[in-house]
Amino acid sequence: MALAKIRLFLEHPMAAGQTLPLAKEQAHYLFGVMRLAAGDRLPVFNGQDGEWIAEVAEAGKRGGSLTCLEQSAPLRLPPDLWLAFAPIKKERTDFITEKATELGAARIIPVQTDFTNSARVNRDRLQAHAVEAAEQCGGTFVPEVAGMTRLGEFLDACGAQRQIMFCDETLTGETVPARQVLAEAGRGPWAVLIGPEGGFSQEERDKLHALPFAHPVSLGPRILRADTAAVAALTLWQDVLGDWNG
Amino acid sequence: MALAKIRLFLEHPMAAGQTLPLAKEQAHYLFGVMRLAAGDRLPVFNGQDGEWIAEVAEAGKRGGSLTCLEQSAPLRLPPDLWLAFAPIKKERTDFITEKATELGAARIIPVQTDFTNSARVNRDRLQAHAVEAAEQCGGTFVPEVAGMTRLGEFLDACGAQRQIMFCDETLTGETVPARQVLAEAGRGPWAVLIGPEGGFSQEERDKLHALPFAHPVSLGPRILRADTAAVAALTLWQDVLGDWNG
Repeated sequence: MALAKIRLFLEHPMAAGQTLPLAKEQAHYLFGVMRLAAGDRLPVFNGQDGEWIAEVAEAGKRGGSLTCLEQSAPLRLPPDLWLAFAPIKKERTDFITEKATELGAARIIPVQTDFTNSARVNRDRLQAHAVEAAEQCGGTFVPEVAGMTRLGEFLDACGAQRQIMFCDETLTGETVPARQVLAEAGRGPWAVLIGPEGGFSQEERDKLHALPFAHPVSLGPRILRADTAAVAALTLWQDVLGDWNG
Repeated sequence: MALAKIRLFLEHPMAAGQTLPLAKEQAHYLFGVMRLAAGDRLPVFNGQDGEWIAEVAEAGKRGGSLTCLEQSAPLRLPPDLWLAFAPIKKERTDFITEKATELGAARIIPVQTDFTNSARVNRDRLQAHAVEAAEQCGGTFVPEVAGMTRLGEFLDACGAQRQIMFCDETLTGETVPARQVLAEAGRGPWAVLIGPEGGFSQEERDKLHALPFAHPVSLGPRILRADTAAVAALTLWQDVLGDWNG
């Protein structure tokens, strides 16, 4: 039986023979939109038990269930990398969440800075984007999207245990390459911190520069939008310290 | 006089004392939307003569003109890097164009592959996105968006003079790091090639692997969407061979 080209995230324990009940929206998607029927198989994951092949046991309009058959991939955790960013316009914030998931961030933290445009985010919507990105990119893990966090609280949470790659758009060229900064700081827990569109305030910048575990880096001579900077910084981190090179 | 927080691309020769006529839409944007008036100053660029400070000479509802005062930045060309990609959904194609401009691609080429979803692109719309991104990122250069090009033609245009970083999503992990592939291949003209959502066909992949100037690279263990792959590949290239590190 061919495997459906759909991967589904389901918040339910997974083990051989386990029944996985489907919520109304999931049943609608699988049976109404994707036209799966009883007996069809698809990969499912819950973010904790790896990826499993499941078979449609019951297909209804308002619900249904799958049966877990066998594990098809083990749980693969991303490196201990957080992405912290000042939320921007809705679609670009959605985009950052999607990209951070694909690029293997373990936790996504919207931060409130002096110049952050929006004071709140729709956490459920962002979490749903992270789930969809995980389904699409073949990952077995979904990063948690945190609630809006003040910059000071984020820095306290990093404390001495977590290094920060801090993208300072006032540094353009004439600095140590980001690659070298990362390689010299070395492996361990990290966070990438992306400022708001208007940049960090002088006070914030002074504070960040004074923290021994925060490393300012430049992302080239052009001023990147916050969403571009997020993708570029995560890429460099994964390439130098993360799981891109085995 | 304070400088307006607007940068405007104008297709007109620029030199001290030069009058720059404004089209109706430009006049509407500057005077109707941004509320500039005669005497106000803003940075302008044409992609060839660097950035100039211009003063509003005449502000009308249907037109107007600026006077070029002095050059504020020289022309800064990006490295000789092309981005070739198989167009995907409209908004993601727009996004790739915006990001390629910010990340310093010199030319953007939509390519037609065996599995490309769309057979045509709206070149004018993509070019407008490149202009807007250049205005926003502080660049003095606007990459040209080429018309839809067959993969074979693109490869012929690269010929022996241009190396290709070819993002092969079938390579996940267990390969030489992209950074090392780029560093060993060395500087010179390059192109980044991103395949369509369905990947390259087997025939295309065989052809690419046989070309001595095409270098397959992996972008980590998760499958990246085409737009993410474009940003990640351009970032790695700029970091290793481009203009990000002085």
